[in-house]
Amino acid sequence: MILTVTLNTALDVTYRVPRLLPHASHRVAAVTERPGGKGINVARVLAALGHEVTATGFTGGPVGSVVRELLARTPRVVDALVPCADGSRRTLAVVDESSGDTTQFNEPGPLITSAEWSRFLAQYGDLVRGARAVALCGSLPPGVPVGAYAVLVRAARAAGVPVLLDTSGEALRRGVAARPEIIKPNAAELAELTGSRDPLPATRDARRRGAHAVVTSLGPDGLLATTAEGTWQATPPRALAGNPTGAGDSAVAGLLSALVEGADWQERLTRAVALSAATVLAPVAGEFDPRTYEEVRGSVKVTTAG
Amino acid sequence: MILTVTLNTALDVTYRVPRLLPHASHRVAAVTERPGGKGINVARVLAALGHEVTATGFTGGPVGSVVRELLARTPRVVDALVPCADGSRRTLAVVDESSGDTTQFNEPGPLITSAEWSRFLAQYGDLVRGARAVALCGSLPPGVPVGAYAVLVRAARAAGVPVLLDTSGEALRRGVAARPEIIKPNAAELAELTGSRDPLPATRDARRRGAHAVVTSLGPDGLLATTAEGTWQATPPRALAGNPTGAGDSAVAGLLSALVEGADWQERLTRAVALSAATVLAPVAGEFDPRTYEEVRGSVKVTTAG
Repeated sequence: MILTVTLNTALDVTYRVPRLLPHASHRVAAVTERPGGKGINVARVLAALGHEVTATGFTGGPVGSVVRELLARTPRVVDALVPCADGSRRTLAVVDESSGDTTQFNEPGPLITSAEWSRFLAQYGDLVRGARAVALCGSLPPGVPVGAYAVLVRAARAAGVPVLLDTSGEALRRGVAARPEIIKPNAAELAELTGSRDPLPATRDARRRGAHAVVTSLGPDGLLATTAEGTWQATPPRALAGNPTGAGDSAVAGLLSALVEGADWQERLTRAVALSAATVLAPVAGEFDPRTYEEVRGSVKVTTAG
Repeated sequence: MILTVTLNTALDVTYRVPRLLPHASHRVAAVTERPGGKGINVARVLAALGHEVTATGFTGGPVGSVVRELLARTPRVVDALVPCADGSRRTLAVVDESSGDTTQFNEPGPLITSAEWSRFLAQYGDLVRGARAVALCGSLPPGVPVGAYAVLVRAARAAGVPVLLDTSGEALRRGVAARPEIIKPNAAELAELTGSRDPLPATRDARRRGAHAVVTSLGPDGLLATTAEGTWQATPPRALAGNPTGAGDSAVAGLLSALVEGADWQERLTRAVALSAATVLAPVAGEFDPRTYEEVRGSVKVTTAG
């Protein structure tokens, strides 16, 4: 089983409108809802790849109930979410059908009490012992200590389970110091962590801070991985036009999927880039298209860098 | 008891953002939720004025559960909503704090089955016999017959209960023919019904179509009422700057409140204009400020028109 942690789960709502006009009234043509938050997205992709996944984190209130209900319909994902008294957040993507552009609204997350955080830690401690890998993903809701990911990384390492951390800001800075196997920042998150805008020296700096491997997403240019075994850049076969929502989460799923199968870095990066590409090209934001995945997988270029 | 009917109830969600930028990502600073749909708004204002109110219509799904939960916290409003299998809609108002402007998104309503419509009719038949007045408000969700309001008007009239109809388009056209006591269109709805943009001849046309009294909201110019007893225009004491959301629903509540107390048209219109004004000036959209209501009430001007 692969364990994904989403402390700030969300209900991702998408509105399609013919055209977004500020200060006007819009009849929404279509509404879609799905469980969200980065770790939940990772769980969905891992499950689609055939892995057994357990999803933990917090959910609460009526929005949280909908998240759980929708998650229950996802095969191979076990719901181990911990209830919180405050309500889970929604995110809203308003898609302008005339341009294809998206306007995003993110509600604040629920306030987590210290008793709820303790309950989560106990649950996580139990789950991590049965996991082959752990993904710690996304922002921290209010009330969760800023050093939360450092605690979770250490617990996974103590249990001998490899852990991937995908977050930003102070949560990333603290989490890196606990020595996770992999971090997966984008270029902006890496620059914020290290103070350097040049990816290669920045990834090396991030490794010195504690990460065993740093996989940086370079958007359309693919992934740059700095590891104990070497440094590689993995690039998609062509420039991809589409919706990048969820592409980073698909990359995380690709890295973990290959990791638990014992694959080397070349295969991990190939899978991550192909899943990202298949997500960018999917007709529904955040989903991935299995045919594109198989097709792209054969033509990802992995070259030695640095 | 006053009965309000909201066939297309909603959860009204408001997001406050520092500034709305199309195609950007926004952190929502504050989220508020309240039960909505025009009849629910009327019920809330009537209850605030001290009336006992019963609210019926349809609610369903997780959004419907939240509507009922919030409604249960409103004193003097009895929940007699009929469950439907499909989910109730949300409306979203995004308030741009830099300009005060609002961008509105309205989800489609739930699909009502013919069995659900029959269940509603039976429930309405029971409720209307115990009512002193009925308000039929807002749009029809998909599946409800377009002649629905005509059926509901006739049932109320058969029970000897006065009925106010506040809707638009074909639902209004059909409903008017069943001879409701009062309709309360705005200028655009009245023009659509009658084909005339001149309010005075248009209200007379609407009376010929079946309405006993036509109370047209003229926005900042107040209300124009054409009745069997005479024609009046009621105007607020001064131009009001604020949010007009819900002002029409407050006017409906004012008309009904005065009607069930046996007040004459002058008092009905005074109350309706003062409540509208107190709604426009309230800090929260759709609420009314009781102090402004009492203050404005003393200085509404009602003059004979036509």
